[in-house]
Amino acid sequence: MTDCIFCKIVAGEIPCHKVYESRDFLAFLDINPKSEGHTLVIPKKHYTDIFDIPEKTLEKLILITQKIAKRFKEARVVDGVNILHASGKSAQQTVLHFHFHLLPRQTGDGLDLEPKSDYEKPDEEEMKEIVEKLRRRKA
Amino acid sequence: MTDCIFCKIVAGEIPCHKVYESRDFLAFLDINPKSEGHTLVIPKKHYTDIFDIPEKTLEKLILITQKIAKRFKEARVVDGVNILHASGKSAQQTVLHFHFHLLPRQTGDGLDLEPKSDYEKPDEEEMKEIVEKLRRRKA
Repeated sequence: MTDCIFCKIVAGEIPCHKVYESRDFLAFLDINPKSEGHTLVIPKKHYTDIFDIPEKTLEKLILITQKIAKRFKEARVVDGVNILHASGKSAQQTVLHFHFHLLPRQTGDGLDLEPKSDYEKPDEEEMKEIVEKLRRRKA
Repeated sequence: MTDCIFCKIVAGEIPCHKVYESRDFLAFLDINPKSEGHTLVIPKKHYTDIFDIPEKTLEKLILITQKIAKRFKEARVVDGVNILHASGKSAQQTVLHFHFHLLPRQTGDGLDLEPKSDYEKPDEEEMKEIVEKLRRRKA
């Protein structure tokens, strides 16, 4: 995708701080990090989101994310990590090239990933209806 | 793990609203949902976090999460999803049984997953040092 910033990073047209690279995958520091070592893990090939990424690519991507998380722990940079992913503009996805955020965490690092929501907790009956709704397919 | 709430859910000792179940995996509604259909996807076997979950289990888990996300989209419940994961108490992990949060999203749903952080953006030189630090292994 010629207008995709991550594709430009993959092509070397935009510089990045590489954390990991293989033939098909790349990990680099987020330019607006929320914690020290905040890394983006992407497939080099352009896929938009969880709805179009092939299974094989997705499973490799999560294993690479795990591998990097373990490496961070070995380097004693972290005692925890978060993985964050967005698919779709409604989900606050800004770059439309599939990516996992890998956020190194340390106790008292001042980062808060607890989702802020005004969604009201449903009662038992409503929970049942939600499950039914989720199971329904479009006609 | 006898004191693990998710193991108790798997064992049927604590009820849940099941979204998906297979021999080795379970997905159910979060009892404190941040959006409609907020689902937790877990391996039935107890693993704590990204540091101890086996690769085979992790790759299957992400594929099941993708499958459920696609089903939600087919059911027209969502036009986007977030995946959120925490490994380690410093990463705000509360239940110490590996899980992915799958958060269905709709435009204007009032949920904000943008991480709140007081981490100060490093300059280019500091970014280089961070990459070096990440690469360093413990002695």
